[in-house]
Amino acid sequence: MMKDRFASRVDMLSPSPIRKMMAIAKELVAEGKTVYELNIGQPDIECIPEFAKAINKKASTGQINYSPYIGEKYLRETYARYLNHYFDRRSVSHLVVDTENILVTVGASHALSNTFLAICNPGDEVLVIEPFFSPYIGYLALAGAVLKSVPTYAENHFALPSDEEIKRHITPKTRAIMFNSPNNPSGKIYSHEEVERLARIALDHDLYIIGDEVYREMILGDQEAVSLLQINFSREEDNEKFKDLLIVIDSASKSFSLCGVRIGFVVSKQSILEKIALVNAHSVACVSDLLQFGVAGAYDAVLSQPDYLEKLRQTYRERLEAAMKAIADFLPEVVAPRPSGAFYLMIKFPQFEDINEFCYFMLEKFNVGGETVAVTPAHAFYLDPRRGRNEIRIALVVTPEKIRKSIRIMAEALKAYRVFKGNQTRPCL
Amino acid sequence: MMKDRFASRVDMLSPSPIRKMMAIAKELVAEGKTVYELNIGQPDIECIPEFAKAINKKASTGQINYSPYIGEKYLRETYARYLNHYFDRRSVSHLVVDTENILVTVGASHALSNTFLAICNPGDEVLVIEPFFSPYIGYLALAGAVLKSVPTYAENHFALPSDEEIKRHITPKTRAIMFNSPNNPSGKIYSHEEVERLARIALDHDLYIIGDEVYREMILGDQEAVSLLQINFSREEDNEKFKDLLIVIDSASKSFSLCGVRIGFVVSKQSILEKIALVNAHSVACVSDLLQFGVAGAYDAVLSQPDYLEKLRQTYRERLEAAMKAIADFLPEVVAPRPSGAFYLMIKFPQFEDINEFCYFMLEKFNVGGETVAVTPAHAFYLDPRRGRNEIRIALVVTPEKIRKSIRIMAEALKAYRVFKGNQTRPCL
Repeated sequence: MMKDRFASRVDMLSPSPIRKMMAIAKELVAEGKTVYELNIGQPDIECIPEFAKAINKKASTGQINYSPYIGEKYLRETYARYLNHYFDRRSVSHLVVDTENILVTVGASHALSNTFLAICNPGDEVLVIEPFFSPYIGYLALAGAVLKSVPTYAENHFALPSDEEIKRHITPKTRAIMFNSPNNPSGKIYSHEEVERLARIALDHDLYIIGDEVYREMILGDQEAVSLLQINFSREEDNEKFKDLLIVIDSASKSFSLCGVRIGFVVSKQSILEKIALVNAHSVACVSDLLQFGVAGAYDAVLSQPDYLEKLRQTYRERLEAAMKAIADFLPEVVAPRPSGAFYLMIKFPQFEDINEFCYFMLEKFNVGGETVAVTPAHAFYLDPRRGRNEIRIALVVTPEKIRKSIRIMAEALKAYRVFKGNQTRPCL
Repeated sequence: MMKDRFASRVDMLSPSPIRKMMAIAKELVAEGKTVYELNIGQPDIECIPEFAKAINKKASTGQINYSPYIGEKYLRETYARYLNHYFDRRSVSHLVVDTENILVTVGASHALSNTFLAICNPGDEVLVIEPFFSPYIGYLALAGAVLKSVPTYAENHFALPSDEEIKRHITPKTRAIMFNSPNNPSGKIYSHEEVERLARIALDHDLYIIGDEVYREMILGDQEAVSLLQINFSREEDNEKFKDLLIVIDSASKSFSLCGVRIGFVVSKQSILEKIALVNAHSVACVSDLLQFGVAGAYDAVLSQPDYLEKLRQTYRERLEAAMKAIADFLPEVVAPRPSGAFYLMIKFPQFEDINEFCYFMLEKFNVGGETVAVTPAHAFYLDPRRGRNEIRIALVVTPEKIRKSIRIMAEALKAYRVFKGNQTRPCL
C-alpha cells in the first residue's frame, strides 16, 4: 500500500511564497541582519492593551478549559455586537447578525478550510476572482476541491468582468463563488454594484457566495467596503433564499493587529453554521478559551473607542503616501496602482520577464549597511502561470520611514542585480 | 447543484456525546445548578503558574504575531528536550527526538486530523483498537477515510487479540494502525509485548503506526506506558524502516491541565512531518505564537520540577481510590474494572439494556439539593452498536470528596429513575 506514501491532496499543497520568504527572513534576522519584512501582512502596530489585560486576567486563574466547538458565547455575542455596530455607525442597511450566526475558528484560514470541508465534495469547484490570496488553493485542496479563477486586470482597475464572462466559468461542479474585498493583494474594493452582481449570479445559479471580509475595516481612500451582509434584493423571496447561500469570513488578525491569536469567524445562517461547526469540532475540537477571552476583550474595548478604527486607517494611509512618494522618487520605471483598501501594494517592474530570482537575490545576497528587504513575488496570486511574473506585493506593515528606506534599498538592489546578472553571463575564467 | 447542500463527509460527523453532555451541563450551571462534570476529561487542577507568567510576559509586549507553520522553534526545542528527558529519567531505551521531529498543532485533535488528511485518500481505512476515543471517526471522515475497529473486552482486561485476529482486519485499503495507551476510555496500558506486536504488524504490512500517547504520563498503578519511541527491533534494517511508519501524537492538555490552550504535537520523521505540516499550514495557517510561548514556559518549568508528574499521578490515584470505594459503598451491583492509566473509569450497569436515557435523566431531570452529575454514555467508544450500551464513562477530574458525592448522587438517581420509568409505563388517567 505504501506505493503512495501520502494522500494525493498533499500534492496540491505547497508552502506559500509569503511563508517561504518569512522563513528565510527570520533566519537572517536571527543572524543579526536587519530585514524589512514587507512580505507578510503582519502589522507592526501594537494590539490594543485591553487584549493583554483580558488574557492576563484569564491566565492568572490557572483554569484553561475546553470551549464549546461553536465558540464561547461571550465572544460570539461581543463579535455580533461589534459587527452590527460597525454597519449601524455608517448607517447602512444590513442583515442583523445574532450570536447564533457566529462560529469561532482558528483564524480566517481555518474559517475557510472548515467551510470548504463542509460544502465541497472531491472534484467540486469554487470560483474565485483573480488575483487572490494564494493559500485559497490549499484550503480547497484539503477538501479535494479545485479553485477556478475569474481574471481581473490592473489596467482595468481590477473591475469585475461582465456577468456573461463570470457565468462562462460556472460548471455543474461549481459549489460557490468567492471574493475578497478589500482585496489582498490588489487593494481593490468591490463596488456595491459589483458585490450585488456576484450575489445575483450566486442566487440565480444556487451557489454559495463566500465573502472574505478580513480587510473590511482597512480603507485607504474614500470608498468603504460593501459587505455581503448589506446586499438587499428588491424581492423578499430572493433575500430569504440568499440567506441560505451567504457565508462571510472574518478575523481579528488585521484590524486588531492580532495575527498571532488565530481567531477568525464564519458568519452565516445557523443551519449552515452547524455543519461547518461539526467540521471545526473534528479538526481542532475547539478554539482556545484563553484566546477567545482575550479577543472578546479587544472587540469590547474597540466598541467603546469610536476613533480606534479611524486612527488605524490614518496610520495605513500615511504609510501608503510614503510608499507612493518613495516609488516616484526611487523607482520611476515601475507601475504601482494605488490600492483602495487592505494594506498591500502591487508593483509591476516592466523591465523584468520574471522577478522571482530578484526577490531572493535582494533578501539573501544583498544589503545596504546590513539592511535589506523581504517582498513577495506576485505570481502566486494568479492561477494563470503567465500572470504576475514581473510583479511583487509589498505589505505596508512598517513605519513610513522604514517603507521609504525599504524602497530605496529595493532601487539599490535592482542596480546590484543587474551587475550580478551581467557577471553571471560572462564567460568563465 | 444544491440538491446536496453539504459535502457527504459531513454526514459522518456528529457531536460527540461528551460534547453534547458538556453543552447541557454548561447551561444548567449557568442556571445556577451544581453539576459535577465527570463527562469530560477536563481536569480541575490548576495549570502550572509558569504558564500564566510566560503568557503575561508575551501578551504585554503587544506583539502577537504569525508563527512558522511547523511551530515555533523554542517550543519544538523545549518539547523535544522534555520528551527525551521523560524517557531518560526512567532509563528506558528510546529513539532520540530532535527539534526537526516536532510539529506543533491545535491540540491532539488537530494533530490527528492533520495526519489523516496527509496520509489517507477517500475510502482508505485506519485500524483502531476498540474501545477508542469516539471523535477519531470524525477526524478520519474529514479525509474521507473510514475507521475499522479491532475489538477488545473488559472481561479479558482489554488484552490485544492475537496477531491473526488483528491481521484479519487489514485490507488493501488499510493505511495505518492506531492505538491509544493509556487508553481513553478503558484505562488499559498496552504492555511492551503488545506495543511491539502492533509495531511488527505495521512493519510487516507497510502500514503507518499511530500512537495516541496523550495520557503517557497519567499512570494510576505500577505499570508505566510504553511509547512507540521505545520500540527496538533486533534487526537494524527493521528499525530504519520503522522510522518511516512511526507517528506519535501528544498534547499539553492532560498532563499540564491545559485543555484550553489547544497545543498538541506530532512526533515523526522529518520527511513525514513536512507533509503533515503542509496540511497544518492550509488548515489554520499556524498555531498561536502567544500560546506556544506559554506552553514552552510550562514544559520548561516541569523540566526543573522533577516531582511535578509524581504529584499529579498521586492526585489522580487518590481520586481513583475514592471512586472505587464509593462504587463499592453505593453501587454494589455495577462492574468497574480498575484502570491502569489515563483518568477515566468505565462502569457497567448489568441491570440496564441501554443506559443512555438514564444519563440524560440524571443530568436534566434529577438533582439532590440542586446538585447532579454529568457522565458519558459509553456506546460511542465502540463501533459495534451492540457494545457499551449499558456502560458509562466517568472522568476523575474533581476532588475525591466530589467524586464520592457524585457516585452517591448517581445511586439516588438510579432509584428515582426506576420510579420515573415505572410512572411512565402506568396507564394514563
